[in-house]
Amino acid sequence: MSSAERVRAAAVKLFATKGFHGTGIRDLAQEADLSSATLYHYMGTKEDLLVEIMTTALRRLVDAAAKATEGSPDPVARLRTLVALHVLAHAAQPGETRVVDNEVDALSAPARAQVVALRDEYEQLWARAIGDGVAAEVFHTTEPTVTRLALLEMCTGVARWYSPKGRLPREDLAAHYAELALRALGHPAPVRAGDLRHCLEVVAQVWDLPAQGAF
Amino acid sequence: MSSAERVRAAAVKLFATKGFHGTGIRDLAQEADLSSATLYHYMGTKEDLLVEIMTTALRRLVDAAAKATEGSPDPVARLRTLVALHVLAHAAQPGETRVVDNEVDALSAPARAQVVALRDEYEQLWARAIGDGVAAEVFHTTEPTVTRLALLEMCTGVARWYSPKGRLPREDLAAHYAELALRALGHPAPVRAGDLRHCLEVVAQVWDLPAQGAF
Repeated sequence: MSSAERVRAAAVKLFATKGFHGTGIRDLAQEADLSSATLYHYMGTKEDLLVEIMTTALRRLVDAAAKATEGSPDPVARLRTLVALHVLAHAAQPGETRVVDNEVDALSAPARAQVVALRDEYEQLWARAIGDGVAAEVFHTTEPTVTRLALLEMCTGVARWYSPKGRLPREDLAAHYAELALRALGHPAPVRAGDLRHCLEVVAQVWDLPAQGAF
Repeated sequence: MSSAERVRAAAVKLFATKGFHGTGIRDLAQEADLSSATLYHYMGTKEDLLVEIMTTALRRLVDAAAKATEGSPDPVARLRTLVALHVLAHAAQPGETRVVDNEVDALSAPARAQVVALRDEYEQLWARAIGDGVAAEVFHTTEPTVTRLALLEMCTGVARWYSPKGRLPREDLAAHYAELALRALGHPAPVRAGDLRHCLEVVAQVWDLPAQGAF
């Protein structure tokens, strides 16, 4: 890892575990194994580092979700893919996603607007899939917005408990979550890892994540 | 509010927004409007304060959940109640619950063991309701543990987005979440605020939370 990469990895780890406000410059230098003077050579302010981590993680998530769902008119297939991709991204990068989820309030106004815009762009993909499914009467919910937030939080939570040492391969975990989400939307349909082939290909490219299961 | 109550409220607010590690003694004194010297009169260490906040919040949640479900042999009614109570508690006390969810890693080993034991006691109530439902063939899931964690995270997420200024009364929000959870468990059944009467009574007693809706 280059020094710049070490600084970034140290920031993700410390922001995720001790919080942005709880992480000092000296902690970052120690974790990255650099002197404080050298550290400044590789970063601007601590907030610059936070903004870069958050926007990169969100940009990657938006682009991957758009790519995995593009050209798919079926809202069931789209939602299945969005859920699986979100779960796989959060299982693969629990540190990054914890920072994105917990530290929005630590940002100053312009950076926060940028991060919120990216998050809105991402949530729009979910909102459209759910809305299209309700319109097509394959999904049933009287509260599409609450349901979207509930399902997003359900999937995001994977970053708080998932361990790659667990019994369940990531692909099966993603398929299980997709099935839970479809059921919650009143469309009970089994989901198997094979249904997620294109999604898994996109995830493997974007997050450099090898398949664990045999699909 | 007494000075001791002000210190506690300040700690909940700052630990929830800036994190335990990001909150200094001077921040606490300023937020509680006390001098640092006076502050020490009302608290032990910063960790003592964190442990007290976490164990009190979890003890209250465990006791309320046990009380709201006791004597109910029906796993569907029990799970409906557990989901609604969790959502209402997290909507009522987003600060406390964020501290409980985010700061377990900040605890030293003995305090952590105490908090984890309380959390396990609470999750056992969920595990039993789901397990009994699967045994009775009213719930259908091949992964009861993953499903439990997914549903808990779904409900906990309310603390991150719910605003009491929103359109939906808390009771309807809780009923909607209970319905999502039952559907996810393969038991699609409408849930209305009226089904949650006993749960709402317990919540009103324990968290001193007046009903918002007309149930």
